[in-house]
Amino acid sequence: MKPGELLRSMLDAAVDAALPERVIGAHLPEPPEGATFVIGMGKASAAMARALEERWPGELDGLVITRYGHAVPCERIEIVEAAHPVPDEAGQAAAARILEMVAELGADDLVIALISGGGSSLSALPAAGLTLADKQDVNRALLRSGANISEMNCVRKHLSAIKGGRLAAAVAPARLVTLMISDVPGDDPAVIASGPTVPDPTTRADALAIVEKYGIGLAGHVRAHLESDGCETPKPGDAAFERTENIMIATPQSSLEAAARIAEAAGYRTHILGDSIEGEARDVARVMAGIVKQVRKYGQPFKAPCVLLSGGECTVTVRGTGCGGRNVEFLNALAVELDGMEGVFALAADTDGVDGGAEVAGAVIAPDTLARAEAKGLNAKKVLADNDGHGLFAALGDQVVTGATLTNVNDFRAIIIERDRTGGGGA
Amino acid sequence: MKPGELLRSMLDAAVDAALPERVIGAHLPEPPEGATFVIGMGKASAAMARALEERWPGELDGLVITRYGHAVPCERIEIVEAAHPVPDEAGQAAAARILEMVAELGADDLVIALISGGGSSLSALPAAGLTLADKQDVNRALLRSGANISEMNCVRKHLSAIKGGRLAAAVAPARLVTLMISDVPGDDPAVIASGPTVPDPTTRADALAIVEKYGIGLAGHVRAHLESDGCETPKPGDAAFERTENIMIATPQSSLEAAARIAEAAGYRTHILGDSIEGEARDVARVMAGIVKQVRKYGQPFKAPCVLLSGGECTVTVRGTGCGGRNVEFLNALAVELDGMEGVFALAADTDGVDGGAEVAGAVIAPDTLARAEAKGLNAKKVLADNDGHGLFAALGDQVVTGATLTNVNDFRAIIIERDRTGGGGA
Repeated sequence: MKPGELLRSMLDAAVDAALPERVIGAHLPEPPEGATFVIGMGKASAAMARALEERWPGELDGLVITRYGHAVPCERIEIVEAAHPVPDEAGQAAAARILEMVAELGADDLVIALISGGGSSLSALPAAGLTLADKQDVNRALLRSGANISEMNCVRKHLSAIKGGRLAAAVAPARLVTLMISDVPGDDPAVIASGPTVPDPTTRADALAIVEKYGIGLAGHVRAHLESDGCETPKPGDAAFERTENIMIATPQSSLEAAARIAEAAGYRTHILGDSIEGEARDVARVMAGIVKQVRKYGQPFKAPCVLLSGGECTVTVRGTGCGGRNVEFLNALAVELDGMEGVFALAADTDGVDGGAEVAGAVIAPDTLARAEAKGLNAKKVLADNDGHGLFAALGDQVVTGATLTNVNDFRAIIIERDRTGGGGA
Repeated sequence: MKPGELLRSMLDAAVDAALPERVIGAHLPEPPEGATFVIGMGKASAAMARALEERWPGELDGLVITRYGHAVPCERIEIVEAAHPVPDEAGQAAAARILEMVAELGADDLVIALISGGGSSLSALPAAGLTLADKQDVNRALLRSGANISEMNCVRKHLSAIKGGRLAAAVAPARLVTLMISDVPGDDPAVIASGPTVPDPTTRADALAIVEKYGIGLAGHVRAHLESDGCETPKPGDAAFERTENIMIATPQSSLEAAARIAEAAGYRTHILGDSIEGEARDVARVMAGIVKQVRKYGQPFKAPCVLLSGGECTVTVRGTGCGGRNVEFLNALAVELDGMEGVFALAADTDGVDGGAEVAGAVIAPDTLARAEAKGLNAKKVLADNDGHGLFAALGDQVVTGATLTNVNDFRAIIIERDRTGGGGA
């Protein structure tokens, strides 16, 4: 198999391993005595809903919130589209309807919750007496404060009507099975969509202490809410969680392992560097290039031929006139750093099929990338300074287009390092 | 051995492996029939001169240029201090004296050149008819142009009286042995101090083509110089190089391998990720943290317990009020990313003993770093935003102080990952 073909096969395997229709069948719960009600929130949740209703052996009904443009036609489950990442009225109203509907269910009934990345904004529902604007004010203050992500989540969960296990509390006494697709580092169910079905070990006292510690200014009614007993989230051990189960049906790691099997079958020792590698895309590329050079020169920390895989979500700080795109910027920088090194090929793509602003998943690079760019009058170093990776790879015809996959396990990056045919290193 | 002690032992071994007095003895050339003349340029070159004269079996004489503050007392070799990184008159005058002195030597004589990082600026000597200001104008234009490092070096070498093999040409017919300490990615002798003793395969036609390609504006006399035959650099195969030899006496890789031997002896599988890992320090830290988490969670790409080593030079874009320092910023960011992860310890330090603005080589972190900082009223995330790593580690008493080592093989980073005692991963 040619390197370009192998790279694409690896991406396809990674995406495939995260598609609801491929994985949901293995995780279907036992049907209940009573009714089955499907709820959900997230960018992949409509696709999860369709995959579920196509396979569900009995009756079902439900309501799922997904992002604008991410709906897929379902026969029996209602799909509502809402705004992401800044919440809107549509999401808030649908989240309120979900809480009302599950409240009517009884102990013989089953709720299947379909949760994926983006679910938190899509189902944002402030606690009674608060508004979306109140929550956003606190959010902005937290982001500026130096609080870490656990601290921010603690405060947020105590301002919500649905996060931090409240959805599970509303579902009880019905049985609750949550099927999740992870796009967060560590795959913590309490973090994906802010854990609406997972007990919250933190308390309102913790939330108040964090507000105190970072000197977060709170409006009077927001402080009064945090000081009221009603704001307390459901805790581990609460009766609400007695009949709940959280199942991870797809993760970045499961996709990386699917890709690794393809590469191993093609004869490459394959190394997964991390399922949640983060950082500014161009700097992540420089580190990877440093590792590639070490493989080439010293056969450390791996011997060639080999494949290096990683997942996670980089960032791009756009300073030029281009539109960024984490994966194309990563590849643009990697090509510049490798400077035409023989026998090194790479692919980076967003598993949701959309890298930044473009309807393009990512791209591929090869040893001749810089030279072919130059032949078209493009200097890859200048393109990088302009954050115009999409422009570069469009001009080269090296874009990777998958279409919207309607799933998301973050970015996928693969680097093939062939044996050095020039004689040096790799020994 | 405790993790902190092991980290410090590894750093000491890395520095030790780069000290001229430890390594130069193994590389001394045969003494000549005639005179021995020692020249040199670089931040480590005075220390190399002393180490050489202490071991040289016969007469010798010489002149070596080092950075202000980097002189060490020599008995027989004259040491001149000059400015770095922006060249000054002192360096220019000394470089001119070196060229005059070696021109008087004959075929029976031996020149030993002691070259290390910084040598290029310290011995900057424009070609006849050009000024330092002329060279700096071209340099600035090149840096803005999008030219890559090879292209920039091609032009620079054709504007110099000493770079690109011209020093070797001046030494001939005397024999020339160059002893080098590398601080550049790839350890290319043609790159260290701009290769004064190494043939230059590029031509003035190449230099002119690069000027053309990037639209570099040249003053009339600078262009006239590049168009004159006299600007051509000595080429591979020229008689000037018949009696020359370049020997690398210390490299980032040799120091990493010395540290690896210490860690292996202490029972840790040790992995050298790269001898030239570059990038913004905080992003390099995020990538390393991603790898550490993968080791912990999945035993990929390495099994714990293990040690991860890397060299190379990060960058810090200072946006806060702190003074930066690549290694302390790396550690500050790593501590934030690892968020107190049990069993992970790290050290980062500049092998020259000076990390950025402070007379401190670097620092160490441990699982309790964030908590101890907090107890002192310091929020590591805020300190990072302020680029004040030195302030953080000074407050914690976790600085690593070696004093000026008078050698430099770039940064040294080590991460110890103990076996996970909490039960997860590493399988």
